[in-house]
Amino acid sequence: MSLDDAVKSCAHAIEHFLDSELSTTGLSTPYAAPDRLVGAVRHGALNGGKRLRPLLVKLSADLIGKTNGDLIRAGAALEYVHCYSLVHDDLPDMDDDELRRGQPTVHVAYDPATAILAGDSLLTHAFGLLADPLTHPDSNIRTQLITELVHGAGVGGMAGGQMRDIEGERQGYDPETISLIHAMKTGALIRASVRMGAIMAQATSDQLAALTKFAEAAGRIYQMSDDILDATKTSQELGKTAGKDAAQGKSTLIATHGLDHAQTVLDNELQNALTLLANFDDRANLMRELVTYFARREA
Amino acid sequence: MSLDDAVKSCAHAIEHFLDSELSTTGLSTPYAAPDRLVGAVRHGALNGGKRLRPLLVKLSADLIGKTNGDLIRAGAALEYVHCYSLVHDDLPDMDDDELRRGQPTVHVAYDPATAILAGDSLLTHAFGLLADPLTHPDSNIRTQLITELVHGAGVGGMAGGQMRDIEGERQGYDPETISLIHAMKTGALIRASVRMGAIMAQATSDQLAALTKFAEAAGRIYQMSDDILDATKTSQELGKTAGKDAAQGKSTLIATHGLDHAQTVLDNELQNALTLLANFDDRANLMRELVTYFARREA
Repeated sequence: MSLDDAVKSCAHAIEHFLDSELSTTGLSTPYAAPDRLVGAVRHGALNGGKRLRPLLVKLSADLIGKTNGDLIRAGAALEYVHCYSLVHDDLPDMDDDELRRGQPTVHVAYDPATAILAGDSLLTHAFGLLADPLTHPDSNIRTQLITELVHGAGVGGMAGGQMRDIEGERQGYDPETISLIHAMKTGALIRASVRMGAIMAQATSDQLAALTKFAEAAGRIYQMSDDILDATKTSQELGKTAGKDAAQGKSTLIATHGLDHAQTVLDNELQNALTLLANFDDRANLMRELVTYFARREA
Repeated sequence: MSLDDAVKSCAHAIEHFLDSELSTTGLSTPYAAPDRLVGAVRHGALNGGKRLRPLLVKLSADLIGKTNGDLIRAGAALEYVHCYSLVHDDLPDMDDDELRRGQPTVHVAYDPATAILAGDSLLTHAFGLLADPLTHPDSNIRTQLITELVHGAGVGGMAGGQMRDIEGERQGYDPETISLIHAMKTGALIRASVRMGAIMAQATSDQLAALTKFAEAAGRIYQMSDDILDATKTSQELGKTAGKDAAQGKSTLIATHGLDHAQTVLDNELQNALTLLANFDDRANLMRELVTYFARREA
């Protein structure tokens, strides 16, 4: 299977799963779910995203071996968390964004109160999904997955990264803070995705340690190429506002050392990431391709 | 032990646990928790509340028998969820409350963006607490606790009840809707508390079924006495705004059938709740006292 096929097949499976799970019937325990909240939750989750986190779960599990669990369910839990964070980040009290992927954000399509509740609900149901025996028959593995998701999403992960980013907007960003914000805000959930896949496939502790380092590198690569795109592409090419880092006075690697240096650091980080996969055989090929795509992407 | 002692001892244990768990050290996994977010989380959680939900966990487990688990940790997870809901409900985009228990609400003490993140973080960490083997050594029980909390907090529980209440404020409330709002908005988490205690003590399915019905009755009793207090006490006596239901045109039992009728329904519901505990022995005495207190409380 090519990487392109793997991306499409995973996105399709996730979209299908979310579409069937997020319904008034599916969410009415113990009491009848209100249609308005179900509608807002669906609006926030069924947004045609690339579903890269579920893909990381799948590729990570595949490069270890077989799993008795359902990788799509575990991936969907990560998408719930990713989507909740977008719904809350877009709120007027946060980034105040009105459009996402060309659609009105949840608080525009509904209202801010409904968007707050929709984000809360997505986050809550992520854990419900992981606690369900359908995700993995072994309850010990399910609780490990939940712990990983808490670490990825919580005060020491995504939510903490968002907090640091808000503080940085007010107080300015130094290079060290920027790295930490990136590691927490986007890296922590990428790290959780890779680890959850490995845990589903019962990786050894050595394998898990190598994949954790790989995931941290992959997060940095994703973010560095994002910074380079932000500095070199137009808003039209990106489909989102370009030049934001410079406008916000962020002292990214590009601002402090220039584009050529940033590109060299990115290339080195890609080599590092690939080296961390060296002990895995051909089953890691798609993961190698994915992280190379992270480094080379054009949008 | 008297009920009063049990209330105080449980509140003290919870306060102590939250105080030690909610720290930069405790929350810095995988990355360093930002002090500002830790501060906001503590502000939202360490508020001197009555901690009734943890007490329900404890009394429910005690009336079944022994548990190998840590009831304070399970109760703390419920408090995290209860406190997250208060932090988000107080937001300018929701109820816009500036004071809670005489203290500035989180968005006033910090700002709305930080309050959104603090609520999100409390919700996230509730599940982390339950997934931890320290809460109960049996991972199968831990995943059951997580499922109960998801049901109590989610679209078919508390978040859905809040959504229905917001819709009611706009469209008006009929008696059936009011009952459903109460069952979801406050009842679902009371129900989850009692069930979680019973599950911790490995209740039989018959015991769990009886306690579930009891918890649903206890939730209605708590809400009915709240409605009666709202109609009969002054704001000063309650320490919060009285007469809100009448002001909002809510067709509560009192509005439609008068105070005497509402009192009779409450008395009947209390008898019903006590009957549901009839098959439990003296170990249920404190739970009997607690639900009687719910019905007879003066503030």
